[in-house]
Amino acid sequence: MPTSLRPQKTAVLVAQRIVADIQRRGNKAGDRLPPERVMLEEYNIGRGTLRESLRFLELQGIIVLKPGPGGGPVVQQPDGSGLATALTLLLQFENAPFRTVTEARTALEPMMAQLAATRMDDNQLAELKYSVDHMLDKVGDESVFLEMNKRFHDIIARNSGNALFGHLIETLLGMLDGTAIGVDYPEHRRLAVHKAHAAIYEALAARDPAAAASTMHEHILEYANYVERKFPDVLNAPISWTL
Amino acid sequence: MPTSLRPQKTAVLVAQRIVADIQRRGNKAGDRLPPERVMLEEYNIGRGTLRESLRFLELQGIIVLKPGPGGGPVVQQPDGSGLATALTLLLQFENAPFRTVTEARTALEPMMAQLAATRMDDNQLAELKYSVDHMLDKVGDESVFLEMNKRFHDIIARNSGNALFGHLIETLLGMLDGTAIGVDYPEHRRLAVHKAHAAIYEALAARDPAAAASTMHEHILEYANYVERKFPDVLNAPISWTL
Repeated sequence: MPTSLRPQKTAVLVAQRIVADIQRRGNKAGDRLPPERVMLEEYNIGRGTLRESLRFLELQGIIVLKPGPGGGPVVQQPDGSGLATALTLLLQFENAPFRTVTEARTALEPMMAQLAATRMDDNQLAELKYSVDHMLDKVGDESVFLEMNKRFHDIIARNSGNALFGHLIETLLGMLDGTAIGVDYPEHRRLAVHKAHAAIYEALAARDPAAAASTMHEHILEYANYVERKFPDVLNAPISWTL
Repeated sequence: MPTSLRPQKTAVLVAQRIVADIQRRGNKAGDRLPPERVMLEEYNIGRGTLRESLRFLELQGIIVLKPGPGGGPVVQQPDGSGLATALTLLLQFENAPFRTVTEARTALEPMMAQLAATRMDDNQLAELKYSVDHMLDKVGDESVFLEMNKRFHDIIARNSGNALFGHLIETLLGMLDGTAIGVDYPEHRRLAVHKAHAAIYEALAARDPAAAASTMHEHILEYANYVERKFPDVLNAPISWTL
């Protein structure tokens, strides 16, 4: 970015030092950062730059700025919203279609299932099994189906032992929310999804990485082909940023 | 984020409307946004909120704020730095090790090569071939090696026809910069990398998706195994945010 401006860069560099100091001090969610006058001195900057740095970190979900007396910056664990925003904006500005997201899931989810096969514990497997069984119990209820579907993929992503997969899959699923983009799941599709989830669950419960990867690969390809066949307009539609 | 504050949310919602308007008007990089007084009226907000929205969009790389008279917000094509920052911060706050990145590359790069096999044109293939040949010509020069190595993976990612792969791989390669994290490439490793790149190039030039995916998969696994064997401390080290 040759056109980027000095004030912005200073604010980002200070933000970086604040993050390094949070890590160095071992601060946890809920911890207060030092008062403004201490930080102004510590980082040797003006009040405007410090406030911009803090606002930037707030937008990234690293801190919250509590208002009022006794307020100030408080550390929090970032959720995935900063990542979702940055990724969506990038894709929107390149007119990327929703197909971009299904292709990414095809690459990521088999690997993530492969890793999860050796990393999920019994409690996590039980949580996964619940999502599979409950999807079948309530197969007539589309909102429960969608919720259990999302939960299934989220649980595997979060328990793949790789934080990047967890956040990326969460972001991609959010961008590809079935109801929001207009993909419909008739009951025979829901039953097919349940069957695929059951097979993936069995592979994971057997701690079989290769089977986990291949059953997940089949499942995502089947989904991608279904949407490609029935809802090509959805896949060709451009991604856009909504919260 | 139950603790997030109203002013921040308003600024983000306004930012979202500004982005929608940029898209609706078909604005391109270099176009000016309307003057402040027009936007204040259009979005029916206070000056502080508007400035925060614009600053947010600047940090995402969507606009630059030109200073001085005749200045103001100018649209630009975002680069991947907003994505890199958001992803790195998330991973840093979960103490994710660098192994997270090599695992993600193992998932993404074969799929990206598979897509590129049917989507790269002759010029892009020629550009790729240059990176392969020049790596061998200058095999004694580590900086050229690293540059040609990065270029090889970048070209395939950018020409996979999937904008998400392009940006993600660029981000991951940036996080995993060999010299910065202390991975060393002796000459026999460089020759092995060259050989792998040549095989991947042949598969792509033959427009063979399956061969492209499998040669890339082998290449990334070989790299991951090399780093795992020789530099386990690097893979176990936590990711941290540097620009």
